[in-house]
Amino acid sequence: MFKRRGIMLILSSPSGAGKTSISRTIMQQDDNIKLSVSVTTRPKRANEVDGVDYHFRSVDDFKHLVERGEMLEWAEVHGNYYGTPKAQIQDQLEAGTDVLFDIDYQGALQLYENCADDIVGIFVLPPSIKELKHRLERRADDNAEVINRRLKTARKELKAWEKYDYIIVNNDLGESCKTVSEIISAARIHSSRQADLPQFIKGLQEELESIIE
Amino acid sequence: MFKRRGIMLILSSPSGAGKTSISRTIMQQDDNIKLSVSVTTRPKRANEVDGVDYHFRSVDDFKHLVERGEMLEWAEVHGNYYGTPKAQIQDQLEAGTDVLFDIDYQGALQLYENCADDIVGIFVLPPSIKELKHRLERRADDNAEVINRRLKTARKELKAWEKYDYIIVNNDLGESCKTVSEIISAARIHSSRQADLPQFIKGLQEELESIIE
Repeated sequence: MFKRRGIMLILSSPSGAGKTSISRTIMQQDDNIKLSVSVTTRPKRANEVDGVDYHFRSVDDFKHLVERGEMLEWAEVHGNYYGTPKAQIQDQLEAGTDVLFDIDYQGALQLYENCADDIVGIFVLPPSIKELKHRLERRADDNAEVINRRLKTARKELKAWEKYDYIIVNNDLGESCKTVSEIISAARIHSSRQADLPQFIKGLQEELESIIE
Repeated sequence: MFKRRGIMLILSSPSGAGKTSISRTIMQQDDNIKLSVSVTTRPKRANEVDGVDYHFRSVDDFKHLVERGEMLEWAEVHGNYYGTPKAQIQDQLEAGTDVLFDIDYQGALQLYENCADDIVGIFVLPPSIKELKHRLERRADDNAEVINRRLKTARKELKAWEKYDYIIVNNDLGESCKTVSEIISAARIHSSRQADLPQFIKGLQEELESIIE
């Protein structure tokens, strides 16, 4: 009913727990959620579009953005920089657009530090590590070494769960997506996000003063 | 999936805004929510059952409960005492039962002070004061003086809105109940309420240690 502020929806999980499938389904079902577009210094691939897949920038430009405090979070991965531009996210939130972050726990923790009030963070867990390993093995492109590396990363990721608002154990993709939808529905109507609410209450109060005998 | 802690669901609203209709519908739809049973010193009516409608106690007993800190909130209304017994609510929450409080803003503020982490507070507003007055006038038993008194109370109640987690403008009973259901669904899976979650994560971590090469 009211003009509302958008949500920063964070989805994190160990690799193989199902985060990407959940994001994809949620994005398909819900027109008001946009995927966050990161800034990166890595070279653009042939099938990528600047401003859609990433904002491609030079290393110098990237460093200037960081120095000027214009990144909500950033990291260096294999020699390339990746980050979330503050101005773009603020514009989207103010326009009432929800922004989805498919991001690892280190990025999530930086976002929580900088914009806690806007965040709804969901951590997706596998039902068991055995199941997680099976899912990784079913991905044709991952060999034993890659899988072992992913499991070592999962060790660090699992320690971060307490920071998240919601934990979903992904037993069933449909059920997990339904849960995420319910979380989003409730978050959208939280009073802190109803930008026009103070004005509406003031209107009721004025009407009340004019009517009381 | 996990054993969870119950929610203290608070519904408040100015008289006539629709809180009682919403509570009734929610109670009918959801078997896991129980209405909070207050302690009172007022005399039991013929159709009331001790322990079901209220816990009927003497004034001395009531005062002892307050002195011993066994009331989460209490108030004196027209010479009678009413209060919420701490032990009973704690037992229900620990058993995973959600407890609904159909309570005014003064009681709600006391509950927020004493058990903020367990509370999901919803404030129900009328679409307009004109509509609120119409609804009060349609109640056959309220005369002009009673209605004016209720509007004066609404003046105080409206000031308390900022304390609540969610504000619902009750334009349509069905829509409002759906919104309350979504709020409850999300609150139930908040990580702070998943009592067995730390144990589950610990299990995943141990499994991970046994599998990493």
